[in-house]
Amino acid sequence: MAPVTARGRASLNTATVKEADLAEAVHVAAEAGFGAVGLWRDRVQEVGAPKAARLVAEAGLRVSSLCRGGFLTGADDAAIRDAVEDNRRAIEEAATVGASDLVLVVGGLPHGTPGGPPTPATDRDLVAARHRVADRLADLVPYAREHGVRLALEPLHPIFAADRAVLSTLGQALDLAGGYAASEVGVVVDSYHVWWDPALEESIARAGREGRIASYQLCDWSLPLASDPLFSRAHVGDGYIDFGHLTRAVAAAGYAGFVETELFNEEIWRAPALEVARTVMQRFEQHVAPHL
Amino acid sequence: MAPVTARGRASLNTATVKEADLAEAVHVAAEAGFGAVGLWRDRVQEVGAPKAARLVAEAGLRVSSLCRGGFLTGADDAAIRDAVEDNRRAIEEAATVGASDLVLVVGGLPHGTPGGPPTPATDRDLVAARHRVADRLADLVPYAREHGVRLALEPLHPIFAADRAVLSTLGQALDLAGGYAASEVGVVVDSYHVWWDPALEESIARAGREGRIASYQLCDWSLPLASDPLFSRAHVGDGYIDFGHLTRAVAAAGYAGFVETELFNEEIWRAPALEVARTVMQRFEQHVAPHL
Repeated sequence: MAPVTARGRASLNTATVKEADLAEAVHVAAEAGFGAVGLWRDRVQEVGAPKAARLVAEAGLRVSSLCRGGFLTGADDAAIRDAVEDNRRAIEEAATVGASDLVLVVGGLPHGTPGGPPTPATDRDLVAARHRVADRLADLVPYAREHGVRLALEPLHPIFAADRAVLSTLGQALDLAGGYAASEVGVVVDSYHVWWDPALEESIARAGREGRIASYQLCDWSLPLASDPLFSRAHVGDGYIDFGHLTRAVAAAGYAGFVETELFNEEIWRAPALEVARTVMQRFEQHVAPHL
Repeated sequence: MAPVTARGRASLNTATVKEADLAEAVHVAAEAGFGAVGLWRDRVQEVGAPKAARLVAEAGLRVSSLCRGGFLTGADDAAIRDAVEDNRRAIEEAATVGASDLVLVVGGLPHGTPGGPPTPATDRDLVAARHRVADRLADLVPYAREHGVRLALEPLHPIFAADRAVLSTLGQALDLAGGYAASEVGVVVDSYHVWWDPALEESIARAGREGRIASYQLCDWSLPLASDPLFSRAHVGDGYIDFGHLTRAVAAAGYAGFVETELFNEEIWRAPALEVARTVMQRFEQHVAPHL
């Protein structure tokens, strides 16, 4: 069931208004005209998944995705068991809040500190880490299928390959998804992470043909980078990304779902949530909606 | 003519000892046992290319590459003319100093400030910028051929796609090189820029098959990133890169040339040049030489 108007296709990810609790986040999303919200697990867990589902529905919104499971690269038995357990809980939460897709950020090299230097225990074997992601995906797909939730692999910008995601391109995500039905494993197209990719148009078209585009997320690439580049994301239109080109590629690939804005930016987080939501909608209408 | 011992294959890029003039740089390189130096144009221009060639030869060293030409993405007539002119000068300098290869960093989106936010004039059309790189390469290859210099395309980490290089993967560089003979256009494999690439082994093997590996450069990926990530490069062994894996891939691809260490790091620049050169050699012997 796809949303019908461009405005109704806009979704506000709760991470964009990080200081707001879930009640406030859905309130400002509805006020600003969004059709959906993308939920982070912290906001869901604060109230419990059943109440989270109710809050979203009562605001007249839908859930575009649940962020995020993943962190699947651990190599020892305890890390593997913990990752599978945590992702099973995330799958259950996705089912309860009515998110068709659970976004997976697969994790970086084991024992790297996110955003920090390598530790003596850091395992530099990127190839093996990528194999373990495939193994954990195999562990999780049956459980997700039983719960009617699709696992959505999110490639992250290579800037995060060491510490957050060894999945670095859309093509790599599609190769990994290829062992499963499109209803079981999809991919996320997040502008911030994929805009630079010389194979982008080809990979988006392939994702569309395979029916695997689970989410189209918006966020602009700005410079200079913040000291932690995780937080270095700008409002659509304030950075270097050509959203017309990218959006037309996603539309041409047949994607008809929600378009979610997810910004990690400390300055934006400090602004009033309703103001942020309105800016996000204005940018969506200006830079993205005309190309959908 | 390939160097014969592992130690003799080590090359010190002058950017690693940025505070040293050319005379000092070749002195410390020779003292520390390097077989070659990689030259930046600023160090060459300070003394003139003929004298630069003499300084290197008198130290018993060879020139592994000249860094760098490029910045080919300008869209207006003046920018195009300036880029072609400047690269012709770089080709002449490469020929005079005896560098078989001129490294090209192709440039970012036009009118972006390196390391800075987009300007009102920033052109976000990445696809068109990439086409212009191909056009300028076509302009320059005949001149380079006449001078016996190979143009070596250097893909940069996608972190630099906006402001320094729209050439982001080794595969993309090979596609671009594919229109020319291997003696005319090669590619640079710089660990810092390519280590994250899921297609890395495949692209290195392809580069080797095609005879296009012009340079293998070393530099480790460290976190947290420096405020300007250009300077965020660590000594080999201090970061997240698996140099054994990467070096074996380059060796298996048949590369028998120099292995150049190029570090941009303000802390390393402040250290005495001889000490830096010795550390670079020690890391080369520890982490790279056994895999060559």
